[in-house]
Amino acid sequence: MNPLTASELRQMAARGEWCKPTAGILDDLQQANLVIVSRDLAWDFLLFCVRNPKVCPLLAVGEPGEYQLQVGHTLVDVRTMLPRYRIWKAGSLVAEPYDLRQHWHENAVAFLLGCSHTFDGPLRRAGIPVSHEAPAVYISNIPCKQAGNIGGPMAVSMRPIHHSKIATATAVTARYASGHGMPVHYGSPEDIGITDLSQPDFGVYPGLEEGYVPVFWACGVTPQIVLPPLKPEWMCSHYPGHMLVLDDNVDFFSLQQT
Amino acid sequence: MNPLTASELRQMAARGEWCKPTAGILDDLQQANLVIVSRDLAWDFLLFCVRNPKVCPLLAVGEPGEYQLQVGHTLVDVRTMLPRYRIWKAGSLVAEPYDLRQHWHENAVAFLLGCSHTFDGPLRRAGIPVSHEAPAVYISNIPCKQAGNIGGPMAVSMRPIHHSKIATATAVTARYASGHGMPVHYGSPEDIGITDLSQPDFGVYPGLEEGYVPVFWACGVTPQIVLPPLKPEWMCSHYPGHMLVLDDNVDFFSLQQT
Repeated sequence: MNPLTASELRQMAARGEWCKPTAGILDDLQQANLVIVSRDLAWDFLLFCVRNPKVCPLLAVGEPGEYQLQVGHTLVDVRTMLPRYRIWKAGSLVAEPYDLRQHWHENAVAFLLGCSHTFDGPLRRAGIPVSHEAPAVYISNIPCKQAGNIGGPMAVSMRPIHHSKIATATAVTARYASGHGMPVHYGSPEDIGITDLSQPDFGVYPGLEEGYVPVFWACGVTPQIVLPPLKPEWMCSHYPGHMLVLDDNVDFFSLQQT
Repeated sequence: MNPLTASELRQMAARGEWCKPTAGILDDLQQANLVIVSRDLAWDFLLFCVRNPKVCPLLAVGEPGEYQLQVGHTLVDVRTMLPRYRIWKAGSLVAEPYDLRQHWHENAVAFLLGCSHTFDGPLRRAGIPVSHEAPAVYISNIPCKQAGNIGGPMAVSMRPIHHSKIATATAVTARYASGHGMPVHYGSPEDIGITDLSQPDFGVYPGLEEGYVPVFWACGVTPQIVLPPLKPEWMCSHYPGHMLVLDDNVDFFSLQQT
């Protein structure tokens, strides 16, 4: 059964009753990526987010050890309210649990970053149908801006857009800085290092019909690509596609900046 | 003699030939506040900027010790290219030099933050005359969001706007996140703790004619109010009103977010 409200979804996730992706539901609400690193990596990662605002649009950053974060109008427990998590030790993925309470520690710094699921609702209302499944996500060859030791390629999400709607899709998503904003690439996947569009690194390939162009947006999976090679002793993230869903809509968060 | 280009202005400042405010000149270009703190305060201050994006819109943050910063299309030496600086030791203002080269150290982390001078050009083009002098700046009682030990009241800049133009002034400035965005307050100064409008804490009071309303924007002088009480061993800033002038216009920087 689909939840009726974001609050209900977060409670279901916290009870272990919602363990699946969050695309295609509550699609007008701000969704968020999660990254948790230890204090010693937090400065470089915050700087990485600031230097790459389209990749990592900051919604909230906790103090060290703080797991309850106020995000817009919502108080969130980042240890439980996402459907699924990933944990790395020394750069190796070691677990994909549904709850982080056993894994939390006092030096953990939590980052919530905007997610492109967020603008699926505005795109649909603008007459641009997008899949209700998690978008296809690829590791591109577009370099992120370096911050301290952190750097590497940008992950991108792809939505097929009819050629007559590309300007509209650009203008709609440009309004939503907290949803990764406007696209980073149109057309030829090989121009950004993607050799086989039908084989995404994450998510579901939706096919590409005649007249449709693959359009790519910066993706919040990027930290899961650029951080593990640094072999931090410990780090966590959400499981791709399994996002935190907030109570406020994406307009609310984009207005915070203005 | 007024400089013809921002590059010329920065070179004049670096040679000690431009030591005055930067309001009312090159008024379509992004101007910037400067804050420099030691590495040990940099995490909290970066977090403060992220949590208070209207007060401290981040344009660039250096690595520790880095004094040449790429900002948009411009490479800037933050030690020389502003007209004037302020230096605090243990929370006391100790010097207001025209050059920081003698004062730089290897743990210094430089932050460039957007400035509201930036939208004076767009306001004028929208039919809203604003002063060519540095705007009046007040220490309000609006609280900033806390980050670690950093918190305190928001400094605000004031421009008198005719009552018929308030919506236009709001809409124009809301477009420019890198210029502090839309106003934080309209009308009664006492509502935000300002008891005498004619006595600003910084800048020049422009008067308030019949039919005009005082409109307040968040101001990048705020770090100079909230940081010294923490008595950091060493910190620097620009001298109020004496800003870094960049080559790109404010549209360019606001587009970076989208």
